[in-house]
Amino acid sequence: MEVYVDHAATTPLDPQCLEAMLPFYREDFYNPSSLYRGGQLVRGKMEENRRFLAEAWGCSPEELFFTSGGTEGDNLAVLGAFRARKGRHLIVSAIEHHAVLEAAAQLEQEGARVTYLPCGPDGRIHPDTLRAAMTPETDLVSVMWANNETGALQPVEELCAIAHEGGALFHTDAVQALGTQAIRLDRLPADLMTVSSHKVYGPKGVGVLFVRQGVPVQPLQFGGQQERKLRGGTENPAGIAGFAQAVRLLQTQREERCRHQEGLAARLLEELDGLPQMRVNTPLGTSVPGVLNLSFVGVESEPLLIRLGMRGISASMGAACNSKTVEPSYVLQEMKVPPEYIRGSVRISIGKDNREEEIVYLAQQLREAVSRLRR
Amino acid sequence: MEVYVDHAATTPLDPQCLEAMLPFYREDFYNPSSLYRGGQLVRGKMEENRRFLAEAWGCSPEELFFTSGGTEGDNLAVLGAFRARKGRHLIVSAIEHHAVLEAAAQLEQEGARVTYLPCGPDGRIHPDTLRAAMTPETDLVSVMWANNETGALQPVEELCAIAHEGGALFHTDAVQALGTQAIRLDRLPADLMTVSSHKVYGPKGVGVLFVRQGVPVQPLQFGGQQERKLRGGTENPAGIAGFAQAVRLLQTQREERCRHQEGLAARLLEELDGLPQMRVNTPLGTSVPGVLNLSFVGVESEPLLIRLGMRGISASMGAACNSKTVEPSYVLQEMKVPPEYIRGSVRISIGKDNREEEIVYLAQQLREAVSRLRR
Repeated sequence: MEVYVDHAATTPLDPQCLEAMLPFYREDFYNPSSLYRGGQLVRGKMEENRRFLAEAWGCSPEELFFTSGGTEGDNLAVLGAFRARKGRHLIVSAIEHHAVLEAAAQLEQEGARVTYLPCGPDGRIHPDTLRAAMTPETDLVSVMWANNETGALQPVEELCAIAHEGGALFHTDAVQALGTQAIRLDRLPADLMTVSSHKVYGPKGVGVLFVRQGVPVQPLQFGGQQERKLRGGTENPAGIAGFAQAVRLLQTQREERCRHQEGLAARLLEELDGLPQMRVNTPLGTSVPGVLNLSFVGVESEPLLIRLGMRGISASMGAACNSKTVEPSYVLQEMKVPPEYIRGSVRISIGKDNREEEIVYLAQQLREAVSRLRR
Repeated sequence: MEVYVDHAATTPLDPQCLEAMLPFYREDFYNPSSLYRGGQLVRGKMEENRRFLAEAWGCSPEELFFTSGGTEGDNLAVLGAFRARKGRHLIVSAIEHHAVLEAAAQLEQEGARVTYLPCGPDGRIHPDTLRAAMTPETDLVSVMWANNETGALQPVEELCAIAHEGGALFHTDAVQALGTQAIRLDRLPADLMTVSSHKVYGPKGVGVLFVRQGVPVQPLQFGGQQERKLRGGTENPAGIAGFAQAVRLLQTQREERCRHQEGLAARLLEELDGLPQMRVNTPLGTSVPGVLNLSFVGVESEPLLIRLGMRGISASMGAACNSKTVEPSYVLQEMKVPPEYIRGSVRISIGKDNREEEIVYLAQQLREAVSRLRR
């Protein structure tokens, strides 16, 4: 059996998204900045998609900027907003995705002071730690909506309020949240938000950065007048159409997907019940439905994943972006998970199309692999 | 009749490129950084495409970095190489694409000194002007291979040699050259070269930056370990496969396309022969086959293009990226084209699939539109 349970790394493209993309690969190939009919037609469809996304997320179309994906969005937000303000102090959580952490490190190179907020043992950032870290010089706070390794949901509303009280901007990397959380920017007054298409069954190579009206951001790439000069370069109307279609599907299917994924995650835990020296690193109940970070004492992640792979199971340790280095998870370290548990961790991220029999098979194979490796 | 003659703005996706992309939108959806079989399979195909491109262009696969397109490539080259060197003096031509000009303006903001090389009346940069502009502080020279508005080919080999004599790096924006010129980086010792997929019948949203071994470049976006840390972010294997397929087609069809486009351009000029107060701004013979920048005294570009548009003809003034502002062309101004000619300029860029009857129709419509607008 082939079982893909690494949906936090990437998701299969939904066939309906591909359908939405194909016209732009065929007749509607025009450059959306061209003034003749073909170009204006493509621009019209692209702007229609922008308006749809704005409506879905409770913001204005002028506040959405198409990017090449999550890493660009995070960098444009963190580097761009900080540089535009000539910032002095940046606060990020210590468990951000590398796109934010590495951008923060670059700002340190450029002379900024950066504070890394620790998380609690549940993998969540406590609002008090942000309150204590705020200074009159704090220009920007960036905390992810959901953690990519554990699925832990962060209290972004409270964090955003604290940042604003202190006069700082608030950015949230919502890449891992978009697929399951209700995103409403008329309720969450974040200044900047990053999302990516390929984590929600849309195509790779496209994403959106939300920038609230009036928040200055310095571009990463300068050029033509596209995206209101925040991001020069010919747009990718096919990718944009695919992403918009993915969000259209989310509008009607999100809650059902949450229930489905949550049910399968519960089933997996049930099936693993009684397995000794296992630890659930995900804070169940305040986490993304379907993401389970599990640890097994006496087992190393790599041979465990290899063994699962030989049985047709695709799972991972955490961020694919860093999978070349099989290093102990910095997220679990921040959570102060005991080292013998960190060494044997895997991330199971269940998707909308996983079936119960796959989860039962996964549990069997996990049990067998763990007990073999422990021998 | 529908006649698309704006191939310098964008090209239709070749159906063979779409075919090459589809597997990555279907079964091969995996994240190429994932360690299990599906991920490694996608990585393998992506690296195979990188090796193919390296062989096609005479460089090593490790010298090619996938980007989201030409604007990102130009910025990564100009900003990235200059910042990595902590550069002091940058030289660019005054007729670069805005992706280079705006990056240069950003470096001026950051304290750099920038020299803008003028071009001759033929739209070409004379090597002597670069020689005269070089200083011991010059860190980087960036001159495009072919100009996007006129198609003028620049003497990149000589310019590169002069930059190197002076101890500076040399970057060339080859976006408009790739479709017709033989790109061999084992012959042209440029340090950096930018190309884009959607100008050569590949998909939008993908490009390549060539960085010669040992040339340090600071990333624009920081994140995971993709593209050897020069460009974090999940790769776009579908786009990459489409671009590689476009270059595969170029390998066998380039010379034939050149002949075809050159023949049609000559035919267009023949058909327009005798039209009074017309000027060919393109330096024929040292320009990209198929690109014709034409001017008509007593006519404004915008109404001329609108009239052509009503007759089914898609053409433009120049860069689509700046088409929102119908301003007199800075390229033609630099060439010291008389103002009455600049006001009435259009760019015709012929592609591989244009047919003779389309060109004859275009000529008729151009004649008619010009004479009507002159009344």
